[in-house]
Amino acid sequence: MNSFTQRLSARIRKSQSWLCVGLDISPEGLGAANPSLQEVKDHCRRVISATHELACAYKPNLAFFERWGADGFVWLSEVLAEIGPGVIKIGDAKRGDIGNTAQQYAMAFFDHFQFDAITVNPYMGEDSIKPFLDFPGKGVFILTRTSNPAAAFFQNHSEEGSPLYISVAKVCQSLNQNDNIGLVVGATAPAELKQIRDLVPGLPLLIPGVGTQGGNLKSSLLIGNSQGDAIINVSRGIAFAGDMSEREINRVARRYVDQMRRLMDEG
Amino acid sequence: MNSFTQRLSARIRKSQSWLCVGLDISPEGLGAANPSLQEVKDHCRRVISATHELACAYKPNLAFFERWGADGFVWLSEVLAEIGPGVIKIGDAKRGDIGNTAQQYAMAFFDHFQFDAITVNPYMGEDSIKPFLDFPGKGVFILTRTSNPAAAFFQNHSEEGSPLYISVAKVCQSLNQNDNIGLVVGATAPAELKQIRDLVPGLPLLIPGVGTQGGNLKSSLLIGNSQGDAIINVSRGIAFAGDMSEREINRVARRYVDQMRRLMDEG
Repeated sequence: MNSFTQRLSARIRKSQSWLCVGLDISPEGLGAANPSLQEVKDHCRRVISATHELACAYKPNLAFFERWGADGFVWLSEVLAEIGPGVIKIGDAKRGDIGNTAQQYAMAFFDHFQFDAITVNPYMGEDSIKPFLDFPGKGVFILTRTSNPAAAFFQNHSEEGSPLYISVAKVCQSLNQNDNIGLVVGATAPAELKQIRDLVPGLPLLIPGVGTQGGNLKSSLLIGNSQGDAIINVSRGIAFAGDMSEREINRVARRYVDQMRRLMDEG
Repeated sequence: MNSFTQRLSARIRKSQSWLCVGLDISPEGLGAANPSLQEVKDHCRRVISATHELACAYKPNLAFFERWGADGFVWLSEVLAEIGPGVIKIGDAKRGDIGNTAQQYAMAFFDHFQFDAITVNPYMGEDSIKPFLDFPGKGVFILTRTSNPAAAFFQNHSEEGSPLYISVAKVCQSLNQNDNIGLVVGATAPAELKQIRDLVPGLPLLIPGVGTQGGNLKSSLLIGNSQGDAIINVSRGIAFAGDMSEREINRVARRYVDQMRRLMDEG
């Protein structure tokens, strides 16, 4: 069986796309006065349908499903079925806990929901990461330097001049025995992205923060793909584009992918 | 309405218990050859029934529910109903994400499941914590210094001699406008526990790591409660005690609570 990194790479080549479509569909985003799960489901289906020929990967964000409780988890399974095989499915769960608990989370995401990859929070250390690494073909993206405004607060905490996110990246590299670890690095921190890319050549990067959060597409894509693969996540910027019609969502997603193809050709 | 810290304090006085019963019920723990959700549910009901007069709080661990997908979330709602009102219900979810996502997680745990409190991972910084703080009467326990073997790896990362967990504790104190932040500090790190307790007098502590993980009950309880409230979590040590009968679970839980009462009387 191919490793996750090989699978991701093959998918990028096949789709000629570096776009990860984030599924963070909230009734608030739809501007619904009386939000119903059905409206949210319908819109999510529209987003998948409008982007299916363009997406390298999808990244359902667990929070937006859990908010509905058990019905949200039923919906999540439906979404994964709608996406179907071939496309990489990343569970944006940001889990992390002691070993025996991390094991249960791995079962939830890899065995039950059958995601191809998951995002994991490293705060609790390497024994909270390891249980996710033993699933053949599955990927584990570790939060390293995130895209949000307060990310630097703890992640740039520096020991002898070396920030925490560098320690995280180094540990991830050392744990990458199964060729299945990637890093989450925000587009909003281009200097850190460059530093991390140079430190871990070959490890795939998942880069959020382009779009609503303001990160730069060109620099993220080119830096990210300079020494390994990198995919760029866009969530709200696609799912809630313009009038939120399937046509408009498709147009915006296509614009992103066309731009990526051009940049990669030139780059 | 009383603040979460006041509610927790009142519950401790009323129950004369500092015991938080962790609900981490896995088929592996039951030694089941062919694990079924029904067996797991039955055992969880047994644990609640055996400890209901003794527990200050319950802490369902989300991983052990998510592992079953939507059925697990149905089960979680059943568990919360079985525990019923009065007892503090802490969702051990260790979530943490950018602001608009954290908002959805807060809705999941506080609005949908109606937990009294949640555990939150601080890696992404204060904007990943704040959305949880605006729910009146609800509590937010921030992972500070955890109980697992590799906890020190990132959490003790030191800037000018000051470890990351100290920065986390200070930020939590500064965010505690609604008297609803607590800290998670492992019993397996008694020196760090003392240091954190001295730094944040008044903030409630949730102390895991006693029991299977080997932390000391006496020192955790006395240090933790020296300048504010602290509750001690025991999960596997109670739920899988002896022959796992209701009688044995009750006996072990009662032994913990009797010991706590004695220590607090003497201390």
